[in-house]
Amino acid sequence: MRVLVLGGDGYLGWPTAMSLSAHGHEVAVADNYLRRQMVTESGSDSLTPILNLPQRARAWQEVSGRTIDVHLIDLRDYELVNGLVREFRPEAVVHYGQIPSAPYSMTDRHHAVFTQLNNIENNLNVIFAIVENDLDCHLIKLGTMGEYGCPNIDIEEGFIEIEHKGRTDTLPFPKMPHSWYHASKVADSTNIHFATRVYGLRATDLNQGVVYGVSTEQTVLDERLLTRFDYDEQFGTALNRFCLQAVIGHPLTVYGTGGQTRGFLNIRDTLACVELAMLNPAEPGEMRVYNQFTESFSIRDLALEVQMAGKELGLDVEIREIDNPRTEAQEHYYNPTHTKLLDLGLQPTLLSEDLVTATLSTLLEYKDRAIYEAIAPRTRWR
Amino acid sequence: MRVLVLGGDGYLGWPTAMSLSAHGHEVAVADNYLRRQMVTESGSDSLTPILNLPQRARAWQEVSGRTIDVHLIDLRDYELVNGLVREFRPEAVVHYGQIPSAPYSMTDRHHAVFTQLNNIENNLNVIFAIVENDLDCHLIKLGTMGEYGCPNIDIEEGFIEIEHKGRTDTLPFPKMPHSWYHASKVADSTNIHFATRVYGLRATDLNQGVVYGVSTEQTVLDERLLTRFDYDEQFGTALNRFCLQAVIGHPLTVYGTGGQTRGFLNIRDTLACVELAMLNPAEPGEMRVYNQFTESFSIRDLALEVQMAGKELGLDVEIREIDNPRTEAQEHYYNPTHTKLLDLGLQPTLLSEDLVTATLSTLLEYKDRAIYEAIAPRTRWR
Repeated sequence: MRVLVLGGDGYLGWPTAMSLSAHGHEVAVADNYLRRQMVTESGSDSLTPILNLPQRARAWQEVSGRTIDVHLIDLRDYELVNGLVREFRPEAVVHYGQIPSAPYSMTDRHHAVFTQLNNIENNLNVIFAIVENDLDCHLIKLGTMGEYGCPNIDIEEGFIEIEHKGRTDTLPFPKMPHSWYHASKVADSTNIHFATRVYGLRATDLNQGVVYGVSTEQTVLDERLLTRFDYDEQFGTALNRFCLQAVIGHPLTVYGTGGQTRGFLNIRDTLACVELAMLNPAEPGEMRVYNQFTESFSIRDLALEVQMAGKELGLDVEIREIDNPRTEAQEHYYNPTHTKLLDLGLQPTLLSEDLVTATLSTLLEYKDRAIYEAIAPRTRWR
Repeated sequence: MRVLVLGGDGYLGWPTAMSLSAHGHEVAVADNYLRRQMVTESGSDSLTPILNLPQRARAWQEVSGRTIDVHLIDLRDYELVNGLVREFRPEAVVHYGQIPSAPYSMTDRHHAVFTQLNNIENNLNVIFAIVENDLDCHLIKLGTMGEYGCPNIDIEEGFIEIEHKGRTDTLPFPKMPHSWYHASKVADSTNIHFATRVYGLRATDLNQGVVYGVSTEQTVLDERLLTRFDYDEQFGTALNRFCLQAVIGHPLTVYGTGGQTRGFLNIRDTLACVELAMLNPAEPGEMRVYNQFTESFSIRDLALEVQMAGKELGLDVEIREIDNPRTEAQEHYYNPTHTKLLDLGLQPTLLSEDLVTATLSTLLEYKDRAIYEAIAPRTRWR
């Protein structure tokens, strides 16, 4: 299949591009290095050393004999997006190319506005490029489980059948996003849903949980193929942050009681889910939503898991409950449905002590690159 | 009360400002004339002759002895919005200041993106100006009934209690907007709701139906106080368009079968609703949603109503079903709840043949200003 990966320089975008290429698909990637710039601005850096995108593509060609086309463009520039889509004529677009950080968006008004406008505009551009070029192309868009928030009922996959005053309809699942960033993804979902209804677009919205892990089948082939690994307060996510903290002797930063429960998945499963969605496309006019995670954990549980795995490696890991910088429920009901990707054949890589130990071992190789000051939370929700 | 009316030069903003001023409130208005510019660009003009905003405010002072402060600013410019809010310290902000047209937003990618970015950014700016100046200020935001779309169940006022798999929660009512414009209002609602949860903002979202009418208690006092009246395909709305069409001998443009049913209200009721919301503010941290309309009609019914009223005035009114330029259900269930504003004391001005006849009579005075070519729909949803 001919597939365009947007945000192809990112933590997930680059491994996805390699994985799809390895499986015989014709892959092009687009990125504008915004993530690199934002992480640099926040005073941090990828723990893993990473090449630039053309270098990565060259290394991939050397290792695999396969080509990944590189396009360094800003997706807010419609002329460029439209030109790329018109030339490449993708059968699927995998859209990771957005600002992905809740704390970044909560910094101040400027960051809130920039996150929302960047994400909403670039998503509209992608929709219009597909529609205006009259392509039979499947849009696979990365959303987030954070769009739903933590309602007191089971979260369904995008839509819920509601019986009300004697009548019934299946409607979009209500959204209560956790941050300005998560709200931008809600806006994208609304827009994509509209585009399926009005233009007959094929779309799959992958409401992803928190991704963890440092390596995939392709990144381990050659150090030049490594993906980025963020651990700072803005772009690092829970389990990855804890793993890095463990290897450098930083206390694990549990926010509040750590009772916050979220869905998680291994980075290898992200790649598998995206390919499953691609190989089983939505129908024209169909908006599918998959809840893309494999297991739920509380933050407290994850900290304990990392502490135990650390012990195996002789690391003395301290857990510290710090004042929660976020406005969120710390103890709450959480039971989202996530069967649709399993139905398509997903074989989950579940979290285990071995898996955490392996991750810690990999991170230990790069621990001298860690920037200690980037770890403590500074961004507050109020 | 000290109230800031954003979009104070508009069809509803200007009469609202006068009405609140007449009732003894201290009123400031802000506008950037974007609506005037967009209507001019679309080849149309307000049927009623209107002065510029400083002239209007001067005329109002002559007629009423009361002052309305005028600020000509673009709400996307945060420095200006923040400065105005910091100086004026409003107790309530009535936010009409957005691009209000579904067809405009459906013109092409540029118009879709401009509508969404303008509306979303200016709404975020208003939220941040209130929060950053630490004001105990009630945000009254104009939304639209078009955020909900036409689900097959009764539409509740913003929130719905859902019982699901043995558990219950009250959640935001699911949204299925009709256009890129309506989707921008959904994004605003999501953002305002988040701001109430995270910053303790007081907010009322008025999901308004289609407004009709040409005059209010204040506009009739002096011709210089007239509000604008749009009838073109982009900025005119159903009943107003039919009335203008009737007086100039244009067939009434019913889109498709005319079975589309929507909520409607008289412009005088808009003013009453906004003031009721203002005098009965939301609590800190509360997001209230009112469905702001008084009656539901199908487009077909409205055309017949105008035809009958026209007969009274000796007008021979033809009804013409034209190919529907929109993607929408033409026959559908529609029964939205709208009791909360009635509970606050709203006395509706219901549609009647007399009322339509009176509107037609007023429009007849200005019929020579009508631009015939601006009427037929050109914007298509697909």
